[in-house]
Amino acid sequence: MTETQKFDVIIIGAGPAGMTTAIYAARSNLKVLLLDRGIYGGQMNNTAAVENYPGYVSILGPDLAQKMYEGVKKFQVDYRYGTVNRVEIQGINKEVITDEGNFIAPALVVATGAEHRKIGIPGEDEYSGRGVSYCAVCDGNFFKDEDIVVIGGGDSAVQEGTYLANLGRSVTIIHRRDQLRAQKILQEQAFANSKINFVWNADVQTIVGDGNAVSGVTYQDKVTKELKKVPAKGVFIYVGVVPLTEAFQNLGILDENGWILSDPVTMATKIPGIYGIGDARKKDLRQIANAVGEGATAGNEVFNYLQTLTIRSDK
Amino acid sequence: MTETQKFDVIIIGAGPAGMTTAIYAARSNLKVLLLDRGIYGGQMNNTAAVENYPGYVSILGPDLAQKMYEGVKKFQVDYRYGTVNRVEIQGINKEVITDEGNFIAPALVVATGAEHRKIGIPGEDEYSGRGVSYCAVCDGNFFKDEDIVVIGGGDSAVQEGTYLANLGRSVTIIHRRDQLRAQKILQEQAFANSKINFVWNADVQTIVGDGNAVSGVTYQDKVTKELKKVPAKGVFIYVGVVPLTEAFQNLGILDENGWILSDPVTMATKIPGIYGIGDARKKDLRQIANAVGEGATAGNEVFNYLQTLTIRSDK
Repeated sequence: MTETQKFDVIIIGAGPAGMTTAIYAARSNLKVLLLDRGIYGGQMNNTAAVENYPGYVSILGPDLAQKMYEGVKKFQVDYRYGTVNRVEIQGINKEVITDEGNFIAPALVVATGAEHRKIGIPGEDEYSGRGVSYCAVCDGNFFKDEDIVVIGGGDSAVQEGTYLANLGRSVTIIHRRDQLRAQKILQEQAFANSKINFVWNADVQTIVGDGNAVSGVTYQDKVTKELKKVPAKGVFIYVGVVPLTEAFQNLGILDENGWILSDPVTMATKIPGIYGIGDARKKDLRQIANAVGEGATAGNEVFNYLQTLTIRSDK
Repeated sequence: MTETQKFDVIIIGAGPAGMTTAIYAARSNLKVLLLDRGIYGGQMNNTAAVENYPGYVSILGPDLAQKMYEGVKKFQVDYRYGTVNRVEIQGINKEVITDEGNFIAPALVVATGAEHRKIGIPGEDEYSGRGVSYCAVCDGNFFKDEDIVVIGGGDSAVQEGTYLANLGRSVTIIHRRDQLRAQKILQEQAFANSKINFVWNADVQTIVGDGNAVSGVTYQDKVTKELKKVPAKGVFIYVGVVPLTEAFQNLGILDENGWILSDPVTMATKIPGIYGIGDARKKDLRQIANAVGEGATAGNEVFNYLQTLTIRSDK
């Protein structure tokens, strides 16, 4: 067994939020550990062109991840692989238990992100980033004046369908049931939008294309059993997003769906010294731009928090 | 007189916050006007190396401004010069009165930023960005293990002095009075910090150096009338920050010091369709990273707001 290593702050998750906190905390001379179960970058690694991160007109997601990581490296952040099993509170300290050893610090920042649920049909992975997307605000603009399909019937599907209708020639929302689950106000907006069509009771089968680009979605009508196809250049899938926060369930900082509850001004959770930032937070907009904003805030708040501890221990 | 031109959204201020909103709004296919009284970039234009904007290890402020503007240009944002005199509410519309004509839109985003007060002593402008700074979180790391002077005695001076003490070899807070104005808790932290020294009743005279880099600050002791010098490589000036929001005083969206009051989650002010983002907001941390976060949020909220208007006008 190796000894538990001490840091000023431990950041779990090396996506844009976590890397930004690492840069801010390290630039304020704190001893920083940045942990991730895989390569830095988070969901940027699954993203083709990013056109809405200010400072780059267009950049590949993995390239942006690499550039952010170069900033992290510059400031001597200790970056390690490790899957976090759980966190234990020990007075003012937080011990992070991983499969690669244990680490302890008075401040902890959870930046583990979220995952889009996949439908699991043929073509979904094949065309991901080449017509298949899970984020309208990110990728909608690539399908201007094209036919677009949205799969799903909840708040996200309907809200993003409305967003896409402002860009595409048409939007077809394909749903497996005979009515939407979305809030009434969102349904009302979608029904009032002449560019949005609906396909009900549909079992989506395949995302089809020519090997390079998507050409449409096939589905089976659950009532008539007919097989049909909707032509589309873009297919947006909204069948759920899941926060990657299982390891923090014992802390009482999550809502009933696993999203981290943290203050929008300070990013603080209800446990002093624990912060929650990025896509794993309960919030509306999950973008690289607001991930870095939250990361900067958390970095600064961690510093201020540690100062209050210094004062306390001086007394 | 030219006709009043109509847009979906008018953004006032082309710093990082305003440019990000422009990118988000334009990518959602809105008709966007971005107004600034000068060149795009805001305070980035007065910034030498930026080392804490994720995605760039180090970049000159004006270069980052240029790169952000290239993103704005790509999405056909209408960018114009103009000094805003005032805004008039006309039903759901907001009319922006400028010295270059009038513009109208249902949504308005105020992103006019803030200005650091200068002391107005010799050497202050000459060494700006070469030893003289107005932002510890931005520039403190450039003075690691060096002697640092902080000028001021309010919350910012004392809080940032504490921040700098974690980086520098020593921090000397030079104040013109015989006691600090800062909150007690911040004073307590500073007094408890062995790296922080104080110079009281000091009239700062000159920031001195060799023409390239700062070597110290001279002051007159107001009691003894003696002239003295404190050696330093970095001089951080905290004698006030002023929001650039005079044109919006009639709207009732500012606090008593002129900072915009906007919701930390949605960036909405109390007037439906008016948003406040960036350094002009009442908030703690004024950084490029959180400016772009707020800009992205506002862009998305503007889109959602305009959707609710569409529904309303359909009825």
